[in-house]
Amino acid sequence: MSEGTEPIRLTDEQRLDWLRLIRSQNVGPRTFRALINHFGGARAAIEALPGLARRGGGSATPQIYSREEALREIEASRKLGVRFVAVGEADYPLRLQMIDDAPPLVAIRGHAATLAMPQVAIVGSRNASAAGVKITQRITHGLVEAGFAIVSGLARGIDAAAHRASLRTGTVAVLAGGQDRVYPPEHADLLDEILPAGVALTEMPLGWEPRARDFPRRNRLISGLSLGVVIVEAAKRSGSLITARLALEQGREVFAVPGSPLDPRAEGTNGLIKQGATPVTEAADIVAVLRPIMGLELPAREPEREELESTASVEPAADERTRIVSLLSPTPVSIDDLIRLSQTSPRVVRMVLLELEIAGRLERHGGSLVSLM
Amino acid sequence: MSEGTEPIRLTDEQRLDWLRLIRSQNVGPRTFRALINHFGGARAAIEALPGLARRGGGSATPQIYSREEALREIEASRKLGVRFVAVGEADYPLRLQMIDDAPPLVAIRGHAATLAMPQVAIVGSRNASAAGVKITQRITHGLVEAGFAIVSGLARGIDAAAHRASLRTGTVAVLAGGQDRVYPPEHADLLDEILPAGVALTEMPLGWEPRARDFPRRNRLISGLSLGVVIVEAAKRSGSLITARLALEQGREVFAVPGSPLDPRAEGTNGLIKQGATPVTEAADIVAVLRPIMGLELPAREPEREELESTASVEPAADERTRIVSLLSPTPVSIDDLIRLSQTSPRVVRMVLLELEIAGRLERHGGSLVSLM
Repeated sequence: MSEGTEPIRLTDEQRLDWLRLIRSQNVGPRTFRALINHFGGARAAIEALPGLARRGGGSATPQIYSREEALREIEASRKLGVRFVAVGEADYPLRLQMIDDAPPLVAIRGHAATLAMPQVAIVGSRNASAAGVKITQRITHGLVEAGFAIVSGLARGIDAAAHRASLRTGTVAVLAGGQDRVYPPEHADLLDEILPAGVALTEMPLGWEPRARDFPRRNRLISGLSLGVVIVEAAKRSGSLITARLALEQGREVFAVPGSPLDPRAEGTNGLIKQGATPVTEAADIVAVLRPIMGLELPAREPEREELESTASVEPAADERTRIVSLLSPTPVSIDDLIRLSQTSPRVVRMVLLELEIAGRLERHGGSLVSLM
Repeated sequence: MSEGTEPIRLTDEQRLDWLRLIRSQNVGPRTFRALINHFGGARAAIEALPGLARRGGGSATPQIYSREEALREIEASRKLGVRFVAVGEADYPLRLQMIDDAPPLVAIRGHAATLAMPQVAIVGSRNASAAGVKITQRITHGLVEAGFAIVSGLARGIDAAAHRASLRTGTVAVLAGGQDRVYPPEHADLLDEILPAGVALTEMPLGWEPRARDFPRRNRLISGLSLGVVIVEAAKRSGSLITARLALEQGREVFAVPGSPLDPRAEGTNGLIKQGATPVTEAADIVAVLRPIMGLELPAREPEREELESTASVEPAADERTRIVSLLSPTPVSIDDLIRLSQTSPRVVRMVLLELEIAGRLERHGGSLVSLM
């Protein structure tokens, strides 16, 4: 967080409401932010959900995470040594809060101070070669010496090699499931070794078994936490390339380790280099790029509003809602265009979009694009 | 050659004079050009050499290649199937004549039409790995299919693999010694296989055994002939990296094949990629860059003047010469600065520099810099 922006600190009640809101149906990080900023707080947003869904044309009332469920999750997490940190709070990772879809709450376990270190992600193929593992170790050691914490995904192969080479200095394992659902299961021991000096971090609820689609979602946190992402060995169309793409979208540096054109495990990294990723063969190549960036002050993130009183709500007129909905289709359109074409106020457009979203009828894409589902 | 510039054609007598001039002591390609443009032809320049050397303060008259020596070289070359092509003539390679220090005459043998094809150089380590050879074959085949002739240096390893993979379609072997001094000797057979559809080219005299310093000099011809240079496997500080540097200086494209950071034979190529060379793993990567360039018209090279009558010579006054020499030192200085600081005409400065050069006292560097030896 840049100087001048004081960290917020939620009360236990507020944290409970934040958890209820983000765990409620049809509420993702972007919607959470829109809701809380519009209604002035999580409690007011939760109370507004049924009305929003009704006006948005939802067929059923969205499932709201109950107070009891939230209390149970917090208590069970506490027993595991897991606590929830809200965006804007002092322990929330600095860079992560700058991404567009930063999770409002992250569940963290371990040595939280690691999250305050400058971080670099190292990811790569699960089916790593001995050479790939060796290169990962070398680069990790060099980055550790330069003062970086290492972020990765706890997967087999390159990820595990990166974590193992930074156990003592601090490494961050970002999980695709809940804190009690380590994947792959055989890396539970590795995670235990990580925690004394490092952190396990996830946005997913306790008990959540990671599904295939949770991994790309998780990958945005790996890149989001980091100044840059290093890809060591990656085949074509591998998950590491998704992380590289997300890193670019987030304005993070992308580094790739070159390899022989005859090695299929280098196809992805060579392809990244052809597309402009920085080629790296040693840690010094990475440090040379990141050192100058580390010093830069981050732009301040507008803090979420969290007041106990709800501010006055906007209720769009029926004809305004009709006009806006008629402009939407399954083809993504920009919110700016919607405002212009509907000739209504930005505030009204945003409210109608929120209603549709809570009703489960709207999809949000990157770049402020929205479409009907 | 661009449209509008008609190729020249030397008479046998002129060709003999060109050979005598370029083979005379202290006359390199740049001096040759200055001399012939100043004196209006090679014959007049040869006649002027003793006077120039004397005025330039030479301790002895420079050795002038005699008419008899030149006739013997031409006759012996003819018997080997070698002929001399002058810069500006129809058979002189198009791109080579655009480099600053293009040889005034090249000795060529084989199928001269190959020199009219668009050319790409492929070079690399002599101590090539099996993988390096395989990659060279793949890339060469792809370039051959796209219509390129392949230029290389007839060395062991990557060079030989590139020649072998383009024997039938046309390949150019650029020699560091005379046409009768093939290096390495065991590649005499390979050269025989090259000649039916390809060319051996050199600027060095018949009988010249290549010395270590002739290879970098030769390398400028490899890059100069080509639209781009592909480096496959190169250790740190290898000759291929010299070729890459020369290619950059000549405005040629530089391509490098990436390799594992653990492979010492990839250190040079990975280093080039880090410095901005285009990473390539297949021929299509190269073709994509070169296709758009191939169509571009080359700027016309100012043709050498070759008139039988000498134009009036400039003879600098003694005080002008003293003034110019006093501005020179072993530290390179630009000719423009010399003209400005000496307050004499460009024509006079150039003549004094020629005198010093022929006297063996001046060294020319790139970028129009000169220094006293």
